[in-house]
Amino acid sequence: MTIAPGATLGILGGGQLGRMIASAAARLGLKVHVYNDDPASPAFEVAAFSTCASFEDAAALEAFARAVNVVTYEFENVPSDAAALVSRFAPLRPGAQALATAQDRLAEKSFVAGLGIETAPFAAIDDLAGLEAAVARMGRPCVLKTRRFGYDGKGQVTIRDGSDLAQAYEAIGRAPAILEGFVPFAGEYSVVAARGADGSFAAFELCENVHRDHILALTRVPADAADSTRDEAAAIARAIADALDYVGVFAVELFLLREGDGAERLLVNEIAPRVHNSGHWTDSGAVTSQFEQHVRAVCGWPLGSCARLGAVEMVNLVGDACEKWRAILADPAARLTLYGKAQARPGRKMGHVTYLR
Amino acid sequence: MTIAPGATLGILGGGQLGRMIASAAARLGLKVHVYNDDPASPAFEVAAFSTCASFEDAAALEAFARAVNVVTYEFENVPSDAAALVSRFAPLRPGAQALATAQDRLAEKSFVAGLGIETAPFAAIDDLAGLEAAVARMGRPCVLKTRRFGYDGKGQVTIRDGSDLAQAYEAIGRAPAILEGFVPFAGEYSVVAARGADGSFAAFELCENVHRDHILALTRVPADAADSTRDEAAAIARAIADALDYVGVFAVELFLLREGDGAERLLVNEIAPRVHNSGHWTDSGAVTSQFEQHVRAVCGWPLGSCARLGAVEMVNLVGDACEKWRAILADPAARLTLYGKAQARPGRKMGHVTYLR
Repeated sequence: MTIAPGATLGILGGGQLGRMIASAAARLGLKVHVYNDDPASPAFEVAAFSTCASFEDAAALEAFARAVNVVTYEFENVPSDAAALVSRFAPLRPGAQALATAQDRLAEKSFVAGLGIETAPFAAIDDLAGLEAAVARMGRPCVLKTRRFGYDGKGQVTIRDGSDLAQAYEAIGRAPAILEGFVPFAGEYSVVAARGADGSFAAFELCENVHRDHILALTRVPADAADSTRDEAAAIARAIADALDYVGVFAVELFLLREGDGAERLLVNEIAPRVHNSGHWTDSGAVTSQFEQHVRAVCGWPLGSCARLGAVEMVNLVGDACEKWRAILADPAARLTLYGKAQARPGRKMGHVTYLR
Repeated sequence: MTIAPGATLGILGGGQLGRMIASAAARLGLKVHVYNDDPASPAFEVAAFSTCASFEDAAALEAFARAVNVVTYEFENVPSDAAALVSRFAPLRPGAQALATAQDRLAEKSFVAGLGIETAPFAAIDDLAGLEAAVARMGRPCVLKTRRFGYDGKGQVTIRDGSDLAQAYEAIGRAPAILEGFVPFAGEYSVVAARGADGSFAAFELCENVHRDHILALTRVPADAADSTRDEAAAIARAIADALDYVGVFAVELFLLREGDGAERLLVNEIAPRVHNSGHWTDSGAVTSQFEQHVRAVCGWPLGSCARLGAVEMVNLVGDACEKWRAILADPAARLTLYGKAQARPGRKMGHVTYLR
């Protein structure tokens, strides 16, 4: 079925990513229907229609899916039952396979490794004995992560010399887990890209990320990387998207390693099957924003140009950093975006600023 | 009272201008409450709160004004009683004086002329005898316009050789009118500018407009004009804004005349006390869009940079021109904005495309 302007885009999830997708969709003449379980969802405020209900409410999910022309999501932890239910009544883009792969760190790593793309060393952990064996094999430091429902450093613990393994396993709730070897990376990078419903592909330029307390602090484009590394990042993204028959925008988080001779190597850290914080720079810094690109892709429309407009730096406003809004507005080089969240809590992403030079 | 992100901006009127102001406000973390009398208002779809009620409904207007922190409007024909009522409960920006001046073509022209700024020749028309005398004095062609409630060529009739004056007066409903002398202009131009609550001022660059059937067809920046003409346009805008103690974005429509020696002269045609179609290019083509600039101004926030990002052409999609949306999306140089209107009628503005080079 062809989706044209005037149609309704459904979004599962109501955070800032949903809010920015909704605004981009409205700009293209779409109506937006946001589904989320939190009445204080930032995306509700910019959507034509809202449903506030649990992701386990089958009747609400069905009514939502019947009321829209296509459904997408803004967070990868959409319960698989909810995704399956919705997809019976409207196309779900990206599809269930992308969601299932990204929801499970072990499945994700195995999938990427299966494509012949390098990742950090990893091992499945199902019990304490398995953890002890894997740590002995992999060496310290290494990182123990729950297989499911982790983001922004949640559900993970670093195992260093002297760390007690039983304690570490306790700390992640003895959940099914993955142990990842420590990678001596030179930097954290990401590539945000889109695959269209027709298999077309377009990648934004490789960007460089700085994290603080496991939360993205800033993104810089152009990244400090060789041209061949940029090309490789786009090729990695394309291989992943093609293998998942992916439709929409996604991000691949990468580690960049520099060998003694300066040669660069990319390792995949994580796939995010959605628009991504490290792509926020595109909203002021690229011809097409990642949000518009996502809307184009999930509606089956032509992908837009990923051309960059200049050197860009995107700075996240985390916690009370948003209190500087007036000074930011007074800076002619800054473009401010605030997410409309009522309460600034430590670690909470409240907005971002893009500097275009 | 200081207005901070998280506050609620009220907008009177719900068309595409309101829609784009609302989206810009949401991007800055504001909540938006749109008041309009048409249930099919494009702006309702991107606003946190909506009131659909008549502009004569005092109770609804009061409830709206009490629910917001500041009120602005997206069309200059807001009834003066409604504006007065609202301003008892919340600051109205721009204020009642700007509205009153812009609602009456005679008051507007007199106001501009009173500032020593040149306009086309004009005369007040209160009856047929007065029309006959004025036409005899001014010569043909000339244009008879109702003093109030005209836009996009509505409420006006051109008087040429052979035109019957009684018929022309009939055509505008024998309403209080103004007769304007024909100006042999070389081009139609406009300047979109903003004045802050603190008296600060910032003008976007002079732009050049092409109309078809009295409807803006396209806007081009940079305009074909001398540097001194650009400066003069900004100076005219500033003089007008200061005299009105204006707060917000506004447009001054100008005629450019070229003398035999190539010297350029600007005449003011009209003032629009709101964001303006000829400023749509700023949304992709300037550091700050006119919509964000308007929000900054009416909230008492610092004005943003008006710097231009390149050569820009904005093309209106009027009537069924919006049916080409897919071809426009496929053009990497084009940025598409659609207003979410259900029906494309001849002469109806459905969206616009911006080309940035």
